[in-house]
Amino acid sequence: MKEIILNLLEQGKYADAKIEIIKMNVVDIAHLFEELEQQKLLVIFRILPKEIASGVFSYISNELQRYIIESITDKEIKNILDELFFDDTIDFLEEMPSNIVKKVLKNTDESTRNLINQFLNYPEYSAGSIMTIEYADLKKEMTIEQAIKHIKHTGVDKETIHTCYVIDEFRKLEGVVSLRKLILSEDNVLVKDIMKTDVIYVNTHDDQEKIAALFKKYDLLSMPVVDNERRLVGIVTIDDIIDIIDQENTEDFEKMAAMQPSEEEYLKTNAFILAKNRLTWLIILMISATFTGKIIRNFDAVLQSVVILTAFIPMLMDTGGNAGSQSSTLIIRGLALEEIHLKDVFKVLWKEFQVSLLVGIVLSALNFIRIYYFEKVDLLVSVTVCVTLLFTVVLAKIVGGMLPILAKKIKVDPALMAGPLITTIVDAVTLIVYFSMAKWLLGI
Amino acid sequence: MKEIILNLLEQGKYADAKIEIIKMNVVDIAHLFEELEQQKLLVIFRILPKEIASGVFSYISNELQRYIIESITDKEIKNILDELFFDDTIDFLEEMPSNIVKKVLKNTDESTRNLINQFLNYPEYSAGSIMTIEYADLKKEMTIEQAIKHIKHTGVDKETIHTCYVIDEFRKLEGVVSLRKLILSEDNVLVKDIMKTDVIYVNTHDDQEKIAALFKKYDLLSMPVVDNERRLVGIVTIDDIIDIIDQENTEDFEKMAAMQPSEEEYLKTNAFILAKNRLTWLIILMISATFTGKIIRNFDAVLQSVVILTAFIPMLMDTGGNAGSQSSTLIIRGLALEEIHLKDVFKVLWKEFQVSLLVGIVLSALNFIRIYYFEKVDLLVSVTVCVTLLFTVVLAKIVGGMLPILAKKIKVDPALMAGPLITTIVDAVTLIVYFSMAKWLLGI
Repeated sequence: MKEIILNLLEQGKYADAKIEIIKMNVVDIAHLFEELEQQKLLVIFRILPKEIASGVFSYISNELQRYIIESITDKEIKNILDELFFDDTIDFLEEMPSNIVKKVLKNTDESTRNLINQFLNYPEYSAGSIMTIEYADLKKEMTIEQAIKHIKHTGVDKETIHTCYVIDEFRKLEGVVSLRKLILSEDNVLVKDIMKTDVIYVNTHDDQEKIAALFKKYDLLSMPVVDNERRLVGIVTIDDIIDIIDQENTEDFEKMAAMQPSEEEYLKTNAFILAKNRLTWLIILMISATFTGKIIRNFDAVLQSVVILTAFIPMLMDTGGNAGSQSSTLIIRGLALEEIHLKDVFKVLWKEFQVSLLVGIVLSALNFIRIYYFEKVDLLVSVTVCVTLLFTVVLAKIVGGMLPILAKKIKVDPALMAGPLITTIVDAVTLIVYFSMAKWLLGI
Repeated sequence: MKEIILNLLEQGKYADAKIEIIKMNVVDIAHLFEELEQQKLLVIFRILPKEIASGVFSYISNELQRYIIESITDKEIKNILDELFFDDTIDFLEEMPSNIVKKVLKNTDESTRNLINQFLNYPEYSAGSIMTIEYADLKKEMTIEQAIKHIKHTGVDKETIHTCYVIDEFRKLEGVVSLRKLILSEDNVLVKDIMKTDVIYVNTHDDQEKIAALFKKYDLLSMPVVDNERRLVGIVTIDDIIDIIDQENTEDFEKMAAMQPSEEEYLKTNAFILAKNRLTWLIILMISATFTGKIIRNFDAVLQSVVILTAFIPMLMDTGGNAGSQSSTLIIRGLALEEIHLKDVFKVLWKEFQVSLLVGIVLSALNFIRIYYFEKVDLLVSVTVCVTLLFTVVLAKIVGGMLPILAKKIKVDPALMAGPLITTIVDAVTLIVYFSMAKWLLGI
């Protein structure tokens, strides 16, 4: 299909290409656009039916959006804006430089312009910044027949009418009713008799993470957003929530790998920004490794008299780090998914203690067999290494389990604090245990 | 609210408690149930209206579901099953022991029983195992008026009617039409004139990860599932997809932290299972640390003549590990979100090379200032450490960037391969560079 279209475009048969293109899903057309020469793309974009053009527009990259807006006439811009869903318009404008925003705003009527400005001012990541204004509103005194007629009349421009919102004369939210329920009810029933009044809603300034959690908890498809007077000002729909879930997960991945989270796609971010995002934590962690260096230098004498001890430092540190990050990852994830709560701190402590004993004993035993029997290391050195290993694993897992909960308790992001810190803490303690054990057992 | 209800239950005022409870959202009632004594819970459960009872039933834990099914009569079981959505029934039965499954199946008619058995046989994580059979189907020759009448007639039991599916007389999928579009169309238009025919669908055996990716790509609310003859057998709805996205993300977190992924919640998993999930990789990684040990023992002489070199081993290894896992995390995530593709391998290579040079130079310079000027370490040793650091960071980032892409190329899960392996590789190479550099620069 793609090849056929590319071929037609190659031969300059734009009208034929258009016929094929409009059979495609707008998402796929947007993907196709990313691969076309800009000149060709512009020709095609201009001959697409406007509802398809605006659909495609909302899925192409910011660079292409910018190129198109810069290249088309004011009249064409107006046509696209008319068809574009309001939240897609806001998403697009948020990413554009001010000259493009101006060019777009010039082509809107005053009330839309005011609304756009208002939306662009909501804090980033707030309900206000992700909501749309295209929803169906009803009054509770309407009959089902009137309600459906009202939706038919006004619904064409609405992004979603699956859930309808019931408001009073001051636009205060009174209830919700699903289109499904409207359809399945008798014509002469009143809206107020079938609406649900225990509505789950958020405020314009609520954080998107909170909203995503509510969507998950209550299996919602959309959620009303109200202002401080509980007046309905917009709704958030589930397709935006899915993007937010991915975004929040990416942030956690980045924080746990000791990076400053970034919203930009990797391939679209330049090397300087990438380096900047990674440097902060690397510097902090590098400097904190001064402690491990100090510890080793303090035990100089031990290392000099039994040089082979050095050979096991990497294994001990790595195993400790791995054991610790296993625990912290599980706890951070459990906290994020709200499967683990602050009150579970002792349950986690006890569980990690049991697990770490089991894991530590197995690892120590295997390691003893490996270094004493196979590598023929001195018995006392082998014992020193294996006892340290057991200690390290127990400690790493307990620290790994507790650190995220502690972070949450003092209201620091668990992923941010626990991910990177665990290695440093475990390293330092491992070395101290190792050398103390060596001094004691080997009598240095 | 919760306190009021608990109080009423304490005083044995079940009827009053019921009045308060049925005002709540079923999700919240389910949460409340988890905190009640089983005896009280059972009394309450039995007096709830059956549509609320079944809603609550689908949200409570498997343990409570089991307890309830074991305690209530066959007639009551039948009432719940009648109200429960089909996919919730399957989800619940999948987690139950066989005696409970038998007790439940005994209370269904033969056709439902056959259907349940068929669904329980779909492979885990397949479209078949997560789909529901409650959807609205239309015929393309229907008028809108007939279609809406048909939905009104049959829609009461359907989990979702937001999207309706158009099938031919052999149940082959011909198109989809949204309820929104039905409502907004004229009564005498035909379904076939407004239905979309480029339907995104999956096969019963397709993997849930693929399905989630399609939902995200096309912003869908539901998706049809067909058999090998393209006959419609069920639909997948977006609320199930959100759970799957979380589940897949948790798996990636676990794999990257060197654990066997598990579907169980942390607090509900016993210590032996947790230990088992963590041990495999810890053992592999511990044994692979044999190499780093061997390398150190090979360079015994170097360490013995300049003991201070040992003090920087942890810092070099940790910084290398951190730098590498930053890169691998970004690439693994980019691959998972389909922002990075196999063909981008050289772009990634070039970007990581630039970033690593920037990061490496800054870290080396800072480190030089720290150890040469502040810690008064010998100049040549300082140079050795800082040159190694630069090498380590460049290498770690390139390995970290390439390993996930290589994994994907040879069809191994990038999170599984790249996460844990990176430390081992970087450790070994760091030590070799460090000691070689020391031998050369310090003339040992």
